[in-house]
Amino acid sequence: MYKLLRLVESRAMVFGLHKLLYNHCLRKTITTASCNKIQSEVAKLLALKAQLTTEDATPQKFTLKTPKGTRDYNPQQMSIRNDVLQKIIGVFKKHGAECIDTPVFELKEVLTGKYGEDSKLIYDLKDQGGEILSLRYDLTVPLARYLAMSKINTLKRYHIAKVYRRDNPAMTRGRYREFYQCDFDIAGQYDPMVPDSECLKVVTEILDTLNIGKYVLKVNHRRLLDGMFEACGVPADKFRSTCSTVDKLDKLPWEEVRTEMINEKGVTPEAADKIGEYVRLNGGVELAEQLVKDEKLSKCKAAIEGLEGIKLLLNYCNLLGIKDKILFDLSLARGLDYYTGVIYEAVLTEPIKIGNEEQTVGSIAGGGRYDNLVAMFDSKNKQVPCVGVSIGVERVFSVLEAKLAAGELNVRTSEVDVYVASAQKNFLEERMKICAELWNAGIKTEQSYKKNPKMLNQLQHCEENGIPLAVVLGESELKRGVVKIRDITTRDEQEVPRESLVQELKSRIASLNSNAVNGSA
Amino acid sequence: MYKLLRLVESRAMVFGLHKLLYNHCLRKTITTASCNKIQSEVAKLLALKAQLTTEDATPQKFTLKTPKGTRDYNPQQMSIRNDVLQKIIGVFKKHGAECIDTPVFELKEVLTGKYGEDSKLIYDLKDQGGEILSLRYDLTVPLARYLAMSKINTLKRYHIAKVYRRDNPAMTRGRYREFYQCDFDIAGQYDPMVPDSECLKVVTEILDTLNIGKYVLKVNHRRLLDGMFEACGVPADKFRSTCSTVDKLDKLPWEEVRTEMINEKGVTPEAADKIGEYVRLNGGVELAEQLVKDEKLSKCKAAIEGLEGIKLLLNYCNLLGIKDKILFDLSLARGLDYYTGVIYEAVLTEPIKIGNEEQTVGSIAGGGRYDNLVAMFDSKNKQVPCVGVSIGVERVFSVLEAKLAAGELNVRTSEVDVYVASAQKNFLEERMKICAELWNAGIKTEQSYKKNPKMLNQLQHCEENGIPLAVVLGESELKRGVVKIRDITTRDEQEVPRESLVQELKSRIASLNSNAVNGSA
Repeated sequence: MYKLLRLVESRAMVFGLHKLLYNHCLRKTITTASCNKIQSEVAKLLALKAQLTTEDATPQKFTLKTPKGTRDYNPQQMSIRNDVLQKIIGVFKKHGAECIDTPVFELKEVLTGKYGEDSKLIYDLKDQGGEILSLRYDLTVPLARYLAMSKINTLKRYHIAKVYRRDNPAMTRGRYREFYQCDFDIAGQYDPMVPDSECLKVVTEILDTLNIGKYVLKVNHRRLLDGMFEACGVPADKFRSTCSTVDKLDKLPWEEVRTEMINEKGVTPEAADKIGEYVRLNGGVELAEQLVKDEKLSKCKAAIEGLEGIKLLLNYCNLLGIKDKILFDLSLARGLDYYTGVIYEAVLTEPIKIGNEEQTVGSIAGGGRYDNLVAMFDSKNKQVPCVGVSIGVERVFSVLEAKLAAGELNVRTSEVDVYVASAQKNFLEERMKICAELWNAGIKTEQSYKKNPKMLNQLQHCEENGIPLAVVLGESELKRGVVKIRDITTRDEQEVPRESLVQELKSRIASLNSNAVNGSA
Repeated sequence: MYKLLRLVESRAMVFGLHKLLYNHCLRKTITTASCNKIQSEVAKLLALKAQLTTEDATPQKFTLKTPKGTRDYNPQQMSIRNDVLQKIIGVFKKHGAECIDTPVFELKEVLTGKYGEDSKLIYDLKDQGGEILSLRYDLTVPLARYLAMSKINTLKRYHIAKVYRRDNPAMTRGRYREFYQCDFDIAGQYDPMVPDSECLKVVTEILDTLNIGKYVLKVNHRRLLDGMFEACGVPADKFRSTCSTVDKLDKLPWEEVRTEMINEKGVTPEAADKIGEYVRLNGGVELAEQLVKDEKLSKCKAAIEGLEGIKLLLNYCNLLGIKDKILFDLSLARGLDYYTGVIYEAVLTEPIKIGNEEQTVGSIAGGGRYDNLVAMFDSKNKQVPCVGVSIGVERVFSVLEAKLAAGELNVRTSEVDVYVASAQKNFLEERMKICAELWNAGIKTEQSYKKNPKMLNQLQHCEENGIPLAVVLGESELKRGVVKIRDITTRDEQEVPRESLVQELKSRIASLNSNAVNGSA
């Protein structure tokens, strides 16, 4: 036993555990009692191991990095990010959306059975002797949990927060393990396609505001997909898995999708070929009208329901003035299990030019109707129909960051208007008093944290950070009761009475701001 | 073996594992090979167990809740929250702070050895076959990791994000396991107390802006505490643990703190009594001047350094016009290990009245100087001196939420200005066209998602949500080329030509907004 404990202490834990069990086994017949004994020994050893692991990690130098698939955001990146998010929030608010937030983790049970094959990508928390928790995988399931738990029947909300997926990161293309989602959803029992069409309108407004390139908004309907599978001879229990194969059409050629259907999903070659004919189709309302008369589809209730839905949606899109941006596309399937009605996806149609390189962005927003998700959380199975959209802001960020790196974008990371400087020594206390006065007047102000900074360094700081004005203090001016205001760009300097400094600065800042607004308009 | 597998399948996993090992043990002598065999069997069984656990969790109803110590934020709570955060960000920006962000989790090693006794409160992620990760415990350690990793020597940044602590939640008092921190820090090698005093100025501006009640900003210095312990005869290796006991003085009476020092920290009763005399002291610059001459302290280099620092800080606070809000308090210790210089804490001095109840809030902001933390992450131990402050916004939120619940606070959760309504049936399409027009003109607009909503319900929605204007459509008006604009508060209705609707609404909204601003000023 002593040797064994030494072994454990030398951290050859697994081996030690086996030896302990071996000793026990040899010495006596297994009885329930001895088995309990073993279990308690195992528990003790595991506790010991855990302790050793903790002690292992005493302060030491190690590779400094952020976890795989994550990154820090520096001030320039945050500036871009905040700017994009503000624009998106602006559109959400224009449509009257309220804001909610939910915890970053949920009880694991909440996420279970919602994401199909992707469930393996969920981050779990360690069991530290409490509840079993997982990091949120999206914002839709937490919304459904929130609606069911709070017994809310109607809500138009936006939610901007980070979600977590243990996916293979492709960071240059904006695919991370920690990333922002920007979701807009409308919950409530309403008339068909009215909230659905507003979601599409919201997407177009956001993409237009972000001005990120030409795009098309593909739409389809899960009922039509189901009807199409039925009409092609796919058995009902294979609809969802066939659907997730069709979803790969944006990345794989039809031939490969067909093979997967037949070999992995058990679809017959004949059925696959029929599906292949349908998923080639896309168009406008005339396509929907033509398909209603289609020999196979017209016999199938689900298909007709889906097609009538699409026709109504396209009509509303016309009224909302976004018809030109919508494409009814039978190959659009969307991966997630929970969609029940209309589904949509916005795709940039042209690669984005950054410097000499072209970047293909692809899908930039997606969503659909999910009428049964809330009921999965309600003890009485009460339905709250929902429709929503998620904006793929990480792709937008990655495009803008590439532009920044290529020198095609300028960002200011602080909003300081005035720098309080001095050319002479021993002016720190005077600078402090003036800073306090300007801060109290609400003026965005900075100064050097050095007692006696060099004038050149102070002016350079202003230039590098886009600070437009400097207050320059000097002994002779202070004696005369004046201070100098310097325009950093023009290098003009003007003396103003010390007591009218705040007023003068405020009017200069106001005029700078109105020029900036007019300049960018 | 068949029986065994049945056992495993019936999920009596631990017992099964033992039996398997037992069988192996009985049949052959343990060799490295057989041990490897056992290990691989164990691995297989564990994998099987994991699979069983996953399958266990097929969709089913369960208690709907958020994880312990966390909560959802509904639109009203988010409105309060966003409003408070915007005010705080406004102050940070006024001082020229840039914004950064870091991942919600870090490599566990990054957090290890930074939080002393509190390390047990860190949330770990499950080992899913990759890196060993933990949720961030604060924003200070990630900042230090970021500075060291990015080799940044100077930065003035704010960071507003959620942090995670497996503490005992006291949710009514605003203590959660997931909560916001609002941090402002200044990194860089600067002259003594210049950035430190700006941090205190920032705290006063934020607390004044939030208008949350009278407060005092206590300051002390870790060097003075060290010197004081030394002068009282505490051995150097007990400084940190004695310090963390002094930190409890805001919650425990001196007698209990004294007992803990003696019984748990090994401080002699004589030393404890001497400490007890010092920690009773508080005051202004005159106290610092008196202590410089103190018989015991004056002999101690650390104490003199601390006192000179405090004197300089108080002088700068005077220049910044915040002297009245500062109290030099020798009982202030702060729990965290990493502070090296000035420390401070803002405390509300009066309970807050909400309805008939009084709520004691206590500490509402805190921080200090930590000059060695970045070096802990740098392979060459390069120092980046830092000073910062963290605003305890959760306590602010809890006060405001209590006021909301008591009916002492009104919040609007959406910003909609115009509701497009109709008194007659079959106006959905007309409403849609007008909504699209208003959205395109940037007007915050809503309509009912029902085809034929009742007029009363539409107007009620406006009243409940504070929407000031409604556009009311009717057949006779449309024929005459006009629409009605209704003022929800006064119930006045006015006809305007259909083509000047946007212009008329914009001017009405502008005048409503300017009235609101004047009204609140």
